[in-house]
Amino acid sequence: MEQLKLRIREEGKIRGTNEILKVDSFLNHQMDVAFLGEIGKAFRDRFADCQVDRILTIEASGIAIAYGASQAFGNLPLVFAKKNKTKNIAGDVYISQVESFTQSKRPYNIFVSKDFLHAGEKVLIIDDFLANGSALHALIEIVHQAGAEVVGAGIVIEKAFQSGGELLRKEGVRVESLARIQSMSEETGVVFCE
Amino acid sequence: MEQLKLRIREEGKIRGTNEILKVDSFLNHQMDVAFLGEIGKAFRDRFADCQVDRILTIEASGIAIAYGASQAFGNLPLVFAKKNKTKNIAGDVYISQVESFTQSKRPYNIFVSKDFLHAGEKVLIIDDFLANGSALHALIEIVHQAGAEVVGAGIVIEKAFQSGGELLRKEGVRVESLARIQSMSEETGVVFCE
Repeated sequence: MEQLKLRIREEGKIRGTNEILKVDSFLNHQMDVAFLGEIGKAFRDRFADCQVDRILTIEASGIAIAYGASQAFGNLPLVFAKKNKTKNIAGDVYISQVESFTQSKRPYNIFVSKDFLHAGEKVLIIDDFLANGSALHALIEIVHQAGAEVVGAGIVIEKAFQSGGELLRKEGVRVESLARIQSMSEETGVVFCE
Repeated sequence: MEQLKLRIREEGKIRGTNEILKVDSFLNHQMDVAFLGEIGKAFRDRFADCQVDRILTIEASGIAIAYGASQAFGNLPLVFAKKNKTKNIAGDVYISQVESFTQSKRPYNIFVSKDFLHAGEKVLIIDDFLANGSALHALIEIVHQAGAEVVGAGIVIEKAFQSGGELLRKEGVRVESLARIQSMSEETGVVFCE
């Protein structure tokens, strides 16, 4: 998605070599809602050959992106996996573990209420970043627990220099990333795969 | 908002008396994007007499609601306050403390990057619930730190049996709640204020 690559180039802030890329001016802190609508349409185009019944994402930064995708697919039901168990959540949940590399480096659980993911549903997973793939693996595990089917994963930015995308594709998951980064550093900026 | 009250009556799950109301079938776990669009329009109508430059909310359940509001106001810039400091966030942030009653009962910090909230901006704060008002107070504090102006707070569901809304209105904050709950229990269901 050329418009996305342009914004990453212009607004992305890089720290270190192949480490941190901040795109919080439009994607995951401040959000450009019109642009997220375009991102949603790009996902719809990528998965135009698929039946999709439901969008699944993970809090917090996935939610707005999934909202745009839901609209592009005609207001599909959307559910986000929660990270923290609060007393507001139902007891009956699907649960899986994410190995974290960006927050506390401790693994954490994510869960989805059994009310909002059903056997036989065709689920499109949406997230902002794909790096080592641990969040995506945990989301796929939750879909499988429900007896539902993963249509694929729509990712805004894939850090292709990490192994998550390659591993998932080898496992047969259809991963569609709107921008794939081959390498990045403060000196070279962002180099995209294609 | 009558359609909202209807959905709270039909889908809301109550625990205890004036304690927990779960509306996670459409508002804050599974999300009905078309309905959130209607909620966004209701906020636009309530604040039709105001100039609004920016929408501010708090992760995670505020994000989708704020997205709908941003669209209703013509794709206004949207920023959400973050709860956990990650290494992906900039150093320069506005920060304030929220006293939590629903999670760990420990206070926690929220923050917004100084890049995404500016002096002189007219800010509409959006959130799903208003109960004791601690999250809203913390968001207002952040707007004031930026030298920006709080136009008001658009709340989906106000637990009017708790003191947050009354306190904020006494302090001069314009609070517009789409559904105000006078009381609720498993026996009586939800009783709305008007």
